[in-house]
Amino acid sequence: MRITDEVAEAIAEGRPVVALESTIISHGLPQPRNLQVAVELEETVREAGAVPATIAVLDGVPRIGLDKEGLERIATEPGLRKLGFRDLAPAAALRLSGATTVSGTSFLAARAGIRVFATGGLGGVHRDWTTVQDESADLDTLSRTRITVVCAGVKSILDVPATLQRLETRQVTVVGYQTEEFPGFYLHTSGEPVDWRIETPADAAGIMRAQDALGGPETALIVANPVPVADQLDPALHDRVLAEALAAADAQGVTGQAITPFLLEYLVNGTGGASLEANLAAVRGNAGLAGRIAAAFSREG
Amino acid sequence: MRITDEVAEAIAEGRPVVALESTIISHGLPQPRNLQVAVELEETVREAGAVPATIAVLDGVPRIGLDKEGLERIATEPGLRKLGFRDLAPAAALRLSGATTVSGTSFLAARAGIRVFATGGLGGVHRDWTTVQDESADLDTLSRTRITVVCAGVKSILDVPATLQRLETRQVTVVGYQTEEFPGFYLHTSGEPVDWRIETPADAAGIMRAQDALGGPETALIVANPVPVADQLDPALHDRVLAEALAAADAQGVTGQAITPFLLEYLVNGTGGASLEANLAAVRGNAGLAGRIAAAFSREG
Amino acid sequence: MRITDEVAEAIAEGRPVVALESTIISHGLPQPRNLQVAVELEETVREAGAVPATIAVLDGVPRIGLDKEGLERIATEPGLRKLGFRDLAPAAALRLSGATTVSGTSFLAARAGIRVFATGGLGGVHRDWTTVQDESADLDTLSRTRITVVCAGVKSILDVPATLQRLETRQVTVVGYQTEEFPGFYLHTSGEPVDWRIETPADAAGIMRAQDALGGPETALIVANPVPVADQLDPALHDRVLAEALAAADAQGVTGQAITPFLLEYLVNGTGGASLEANLAAVRGNAGLAGRIAAAFSREG
Ligand SMILES: [Mn+2]
Ligand SMILES: [Mn+2]
Ligand SMILES: [Mn+2]
Repeated sequence: MRITDEVAEAIAEGRPVVALESTIISHGLPQPRNLQVAVELEETVREAGAVPATIAVLDGVPRIGLDKEGLERIATEPGLRKLGFRDLAPAAALRLSGATTVSGTSFLAARAGIRVFATGGLGGVHRDWTTVQDESADLDTLSRTRITVVCAGVKSILDVPATLQRLETRQVTVVGYQTEEFPGFYLHTSGEPVDWRIETPADAAGIMRAQDALGGPETALIVANPVPVADQLDPALHDRVLAEALAAADAQGVTGQAITPFLLEYLVNGTGGASLEANLAAVRGNAGLAGRIAAAFSREG
Repeated sequence: MRITDEVAEAIAEGRPVVALESTIISHGLPQPRNLQVAVELEETVREAGAVPATIAVLDGVPRIGLDKEGLERIATEPGLRKLGFRDLAPAAALRLSGATTVSGTSFLAARAGIRVFATGGLGGVHRDWTTVQDESADLDTLSRTRITVVCAGVKSILDVPATLQRLETRQVTVVGYQTEEFPGFYLHTSGEPVDWRIETPADAAGIMRAQDALGGPETALIVANPVPVADQLDPALHDRVLAEALAAADAQGVTGQAITPFLLEYLVNGTGGASLEANLAAVRGNAGLAGRIAAAFSREG
Repeated sequence: MRITDEVAEAIAEGRPVVALESTIISHGLPQPRNLQVAVELEETVREAGAVPATIAVLDGVPRIGLDKEGLERIATEPGLRKLGFRDLAPAAALRLSGATTVSGTSFLAARAGIRVFATGGLGGVHRDWTTVQDESADLDTLSRTRITVVCAGVKSILDVPATLQRLETRQVTVVGYQTEEFPGFYLHTSGEPVDWRIETPADAAGIMRAQDALGGPETALIVANPVPVADQLDPALHDRVLAEALAAADAQGVTGQAITPFLLEYLVNGTGGASLEANLAAVRGNAGLAGRIAAAFSREG
């Protein structure tokens, strides 16, 4: 595991650090916008008062913090793998490169001593779980990793209520940031309730301190931070295009691993790119809030 | 975490202690009977030779052992939350009060050094799990908490066979106390087999010692203790009213969080209160057996 | 826990050791062939350069390494139990004997300091999971035990794709040995893809070292090693007899615990014993590969 000097020093001195994942760069956005966004998210974290640490695996080595060349490799290298926790050991042994998912990033961040992580949406339970049992490893990682993940919910192409059920079953704490409803990723709300509402970064930091004081299983804290209403995808457009996308996947027999990219691309095209803008607005908001939470946690420390 | 002097001394001296949960007081029984039962269960534990420690959270502070005033607050305060493990940190940070579920109580008891816990029935897998994926966090807690839970099975409004499957999958040891069948909460038996049968509190203490000697994942031991046949709900009445309750929930479109209280109230009314009496008989039996198991475990220690 | 001198010395000196499970002896094969196979598998491990440690529980005591008398007891004692992790404490306390499953064997091997384990097929998700929620505890054990399991996949009577999904969800690393497809137990391939392919025992040892270097949750490594094409069951015969077996189970109303032995016996009879030969070829191959992986891991150490 290689940590950049800037990140290592910030960790050693107890200054705020925010982990950022790399699959959004490698798989989530078109080139060259993906590299611009990667740079911009790091800047957003800095403006919020924290040091950004984008995480990936290069030539088998987990990297905590990427320099410009590292970000460029993630943004442009063809055929990069997506690496969850279970993939890190094979990637290391076989000296392969890859972008880290919420699972892989959470694990590496926590191992490096980083407590706060900003992402877009969590992985979750797939809509076809009742027949194919498909549930993202993100949930298992969050059930056993002491990290705070700031996200805008779960992509609506997944089964959101089932994902919330699994987070409850697996004991992952979920709080809404200035909301009592779980965000809908592209939308301000998914319509599903959350049990806990907080108002400030200091509230989040207080829960993190309470987790540490309580001890026990090292579960995560999810801070669910909605995209502002002004920046959200138009809900009617979202619902219509999502229904079309699901119908098209069904009609064309798209299943398994292929279904997520199919649906996401359908959404981008069907909304004239508006789903992408809402996605980016959500991620920017999360990076900023994560920075403020890391700062609040650090001040209390 | 605040522990009463009596409980702290008993733990320090290795004397038997039994944890009791508080959601039965706050949510499971009508006032003022709930406070009477809370006091009575503590007395039952004492008669069995152990110190009772009713567990709850007051003003954000986990309490191990409640004085009279604490019990009264749990019995009478309106709008108390139900707190599982994942809710303890937000409750602490936001200084809220709540009653602890099997999940929350198990965790806090184990953290305080209490090994035996008496309750009525475990949470489990809901009957609608095939469509909404609803499984109580109790099971995940039991899969990673070294505690002995004495219970009368799982409420029959849940999917009992699926709950037993999940306990097997998640590696929670289940033994029948003087029975080869999993109890049916209101009924002496659910009709489902259990793999292990024990005869005495000393047998349970022996398994607990073996768990400690084996080491490894800190899983729970469930001692499934049936309500005596003489005290059970009439099985024919149970089956009839339960079928009616499920049909009524279906007809009225009751789902999600609302279904458990709906079904339980339907059972109480539909059995003329007999389901409540069977419930209480079960809990009393569990408190007594838990006291005897704690005493046997303590003697061996 | 009692470890034979030979195994204890090998562990202490860092020499290669391979754990073997005992349910294949007690429940998986007919007498007297089962004892011959037990002896033969130990010999295969030795030829690969490692010390075999067949694991079982005798009179309540976990045994790491069995002498001739111990093997004979497992091969011939009537009514032996199958013991997973959750059964070990009751078996110890009640001083019962039993054969250990993948779950029980993995746990005991890891506790004894053995890192490599050879078996036939893993337990997994049952085909009727959508209605009865039946998932082997093997998966939960592998999600929290640092062991390398060499197997030929999952028996085809189970839901293989769902099992692979659960292994992903629970973060168990799976690599194909000289294949990109998950083996089909009796068949060279199940047709399902695996994410990682390795070529040599040294590759497996490298992944194990990387797991240790990464730290974190102590998950397993599954090395999926196909039965050679020359030794596999004829795929057309397999598919026909399996379909018949499933139809027969359905027609005769065979469910629950009874279904696995029913289907396996149907396969043996319906293939004129060829399924048994393919099974044995797979297990022999796994024992040999496990020995070579243990040797490679030991050399690196
Ligand atoms: Mn998946
Ligand atoms: Mn639930
Ligand atoms: Mn099963």
